[in-house]
Amino acid sequence: MSGAGPNSTDCTGVVHYLKTAARDVERALDQLLPLPRLAPERELYFAMRYSLFAGGKRLRPALFFAALEAFGRERTPFLPFAAALEMIHTYSLIHDDLPAMDDDDLRRGQPTCHVRYGEALAILAGDALLTHAFALMLQPMAGAAPADQMAAAREVAWQAGIGGMVAGQAAEIVSLQSEVDEGLLTYIYQGKTSALFAAAVVSAAHLCGAAQEEIAALREYAKHLGLGFQIIDDVLDVEGDTAKLGKPVGSDEARELITFVTLYGCEAARQRAAQEAEAARCSLDIFGGSAAMLRQFPALLAERDH
Amino acid sequence: MSGAGPNSTDCTGVVHYLKTAARDVERALDQLLPLPRLAPERELYFAMRYSLFAGGKRLRPALFFAALEAFGRERTPFLPFAAALEMIHTYSLIHDDLPAMDDDDLRRGQPTCHVRYGEALAILAGDALLTHAFALMLQPMAGAAPADQMAAAREVAWQAGIGGMVAGQAAEIVSLQSEVDEGLLTYIYQGKTSALFAAAVVSAAHLCGAAQEEIAALREYAKHLGLGFQIIDDVLDVEGDTAKLGKPVGSDEARELITFVTLYGCEAARQRAAQEAEAARCSLDIFGGSAAMLRQFPALLAERDH
Repeated sequence: MSGAGPNSTDCTGVVHYLKTAARDVERALDQLLPLPRLAPERELYFAMRYSLFAGGKRLRPALFFAALEAFGRERTPFLPFAAALEMIHTYSLIHDDLPAMDDDDLRRGQPTCHVRYGEALAILAGDALLTHAFALMLQPMAGAAPADQMAAAREVAWQAGIGGMVAGQAAEIVSLQSEVDEGLLTYIYQGKTSALFAAAVVSAAHLCGAAQEEIAALREYAKHLGLGFQIIDDVLDVEGDTAKLGKPVGSDEARELITFVTLYGCEAARQRAAQEAEAARCSLDIFGGSAAMLRQFPALLAERDH
Repeated sequence: MSGAGPNSTDCTGVVHYLKTAARDVERALDQLLPLPRLAPERELYFAMRYSLFAGGKRLRPALFFAALEAFGRERTPFLPFAAALEMIHTYSLIHDDLPAMDDDDLRRGQPTCHVRYGEALAILAGDALLTHAFALMLQPMAGAAPADQMAAAREVAWQAGIGGMVAGQAAEIVSLQSEVDEGLLTYIYQGKTSALFAAAVVSAAHLCGAAQEEIAALREYAKHLGLGFQIIDDVLDVEGDTAKLGKPVGSDEARELITFVTLYGCEAARQRAAQEAEAARCSLDIFGGSAAMLRQFPALLAERDH
């Protein structure tokens, strides 16, 4: 019996929640992207599905479900939206791993998409996942007003693009040739991780016709949670276990990347992550008991080992 | 005074129309993607704008405007949608030009995006243009019902993604290692060119609340027009003028690409393009006089030199 209250660091409840969310979103992904019977595009689908089903915690769909729950809504009518969020996350990993970007050969212990299918098809698989995500988000969904659904998908486009993720990636690349201070690093981390967390929880809020102050609170929540996750990523890159991470430790150092750990050390980075976890929980104060699951996600930070 | 009737091959009217469409969409692009004042994402915007403003006929926005006209609608409220279509076209060119894809150093006589900004930023500029296009298409637009606007953006996602463009690109890459017959080539051409033409005219129809038979007719129109354009591209790659094309002629042959020209020769390819032009015009028979401008686009095929 889990006694996880709103401020608990016990994460057994959320770990179980992640498992059921992963099961649901993986089933949806499988149904929404079946292998075509005819030849011309089969290779493209293979590449898309290879990366989609290479594991992963399915954190963004789980956050999306937990936010729907905060508004008292079932996940079933919105499964295509959840699948779309995971497609966007997957596309970003495929493009990040490319030789011209991070040049990673392994992800979660498996060859990356471009190693397995070649660079050209990996670029296209990423493009296809990103594009198809919008086709899915824009399918009519029972219980969502079209104007709300438009706002939800628009939020995702903004957070995944120049308002968040791609901007963060670009800033990281440009920063490799310049001085990086904490302000720039925070900007990059918010883009790389907070932005898609925000896409997940804020799009759910839009779909449920949420009020502006609820949307603002969820955006704040995602900002802190994402920062915490990215900082723990830095720590794991130094202190982690290669087998659990599915990639070599020390890769940030090898790439001479400035991180919270290189700026302040592991201990201070862990403290900062704990502060972000607390700030994320506090952002939810305007919500009642229905946000209980959202309140538990920050507890994952203290327990993360991959 | 142009006497261009429905079956004319005189293209002075449409050439003028393309100029005003280009002026309108370029102004919209400039306003919708202003350079940010702060540093982190400036380089990304530079790369996006570099490719967006590198010229081009702005054919997709022009087709979009002409389709709006067929339904008696003004273009002004829908300028962000037109700009989005051009962003998607531009993203596809940036990614196509990458070393892992066509490896082109020049486009329209200028260095390609990755030559100018590096491969990593070029990949991200493409990703950002594609993503932001959806943010723009999903802005509230006066005179469009949200459900119609969702259908319009969903059509674009399908045609630009696994239902069209990306599928066509992937099929081309996979086909480099196999036998190519006319069926596969037609599939590739429809994906590479017809699909975004369809996105342009069919999304306009959705925004205007068109009937299913009108949408089907426009899809047919785009299919034939796109095929014709792609076949003329093949011819120009052999017979064209490097200065006008802004890239070397003979590049298909150098890459050992199978095209309509390598299969049947230039003369037969031109004849086939003319048949596609005629089929495109015939597809519009269910429309009245308001489709006059759409009827003139096929005339461009006979006159194209770049």
